[in-house]
Amino acid sequence: MAWRSEIPEPKVDVSFTERVPEGDDVARDVCDTCGFIHYVNPKIVVGSVVEHEGKILLCRRAIEPRKGYWTLPAGYMEKGETTEEGAKREAHEEALAHIRIHDLLAIYNIPRISQVQLMYRASLSVPEIGAGPESLEVALYDWDDIPWDELAFPSVHWALTHYRAVQGQERIVPFGNPPGERGNRMPLKSG
Amino acid sequence: MAWRSEIPEPKVDVSFTERVPEGDDVARDVCDTCGFIHYVNPKIVVGSVVEHEGKILLCRRAIEPRKGYWTLPAGYMEKGETTEEGAKREAHEEALAHIRIHDLLAIYNIPRISQVQLMYRASLSVPEIGAGPESLEVALYDWDDIPWDELAFPSVHWALTHYRAVQGQERIVPFGNPPGERGNRMPLKSG
Ligand SMILES: [Zn+2]
Ligand SMILES: [Zn+2]
Repeated sequence: MAWRSEIPEPKVDVSFTERVPEGDDVARDVCDTCGFIHYVNPKIVVGSVVEHEGKILLCRRAIEPRKGYWTLPAGYMEKGETTEEGAKREAHEEALAHIRIHDLLAIYNIPRISQVQLMYRASLSVPEIGAGPESLEVALYDWDDIPWDELAFPSVHWALTHYRAVQGQERIVPFGNPPGERGNRMPLKSG
Repeated sequence: MAWRSEIPEPKVDVSFTERVPEGDDVARDVCDTCGFIHYVNPKIVVGSVVEHEGKILLCRRAIEPRKGYWTLPAGYMEKGETTEEGAKREAHEEALAHIRIHDLLAIYNIPRISQVQLMYRASLSVPEIGAGPESLEVALYDWDDIPWDELAFPSVHWALTHYRAVQGQERIVPFGNPPGERGNRMPLKSG
């Protein structure tokens, strides 16, 4: 899982000044040392709600932020992969899981941190899971046992709730953010 | 429109060496001058197929790449906006159009250039269009008049074809890339 914490800081002292580069129309951070323009694009998180025999795969985070809390296998998309490939890679990295992607469950926007999350519906293609390096433990939860009070992020809550709302439906229109939600607060238990 | 050309080059000589930074697990370009780590994340393009009285809005590009060719209003998502806000902004910038977004038409992956495109179905909310600074001209095309041989990018072709396939349907499952297509070649006219 790599929502925000995973990108290490630069190893040397680098200072940036925000200004509009020539030929651009938006202010960017420009390195005071070498003039390099730091384009901060919105980042794509790819993840999945993975079902196996009616249970849902959750991972307990071994890293900050929200260490010790439960999350879905998800993380930043890498260069050169597709969104589906990224979601599969994250399930493999965090839960040692091999998954089959079925369809797109939701697109969530967290504009405060310029993040777009693509969450897929998936299932285990091999009935094995295990904790990867970013997970303390992984588990398959019955719906009624999901630890709602210990979920890591609002969007984990949203994705589980949305998944449940269309469980068993074959062709679905992907969800967006719950009305009015921007990812800034944790919803109450929906159970 | 800002598929690839819009990001200006750094203004000073900057050289990078590709290596795996400490604490990271992927090779990154690291600046030889200041050590700044250049995280190249996949980029999100947001755009729309905009319909007005049965016609489709197209923009003729005023900028490279593919200057003079026709495209859909679309471009890179900016920091701090949602995907829908980005698609609306691009329609406004490139076609002086105010649009209403209806739903997600497609997610296209172009892994060679690490690009994810979110294409929405939309309509004009005000019956006015005009050429923005990145467009030579804009026009509303009847389906039969679409200039298939003068489309700028494969994904413009895909989006138009996908749009047509579900025109009039209220609830749709978003499309992905056409089977086998990675965005490396222009399809033949589908008309
Ligand atoms: Zn991760
Ligand atoms: Zn643009």
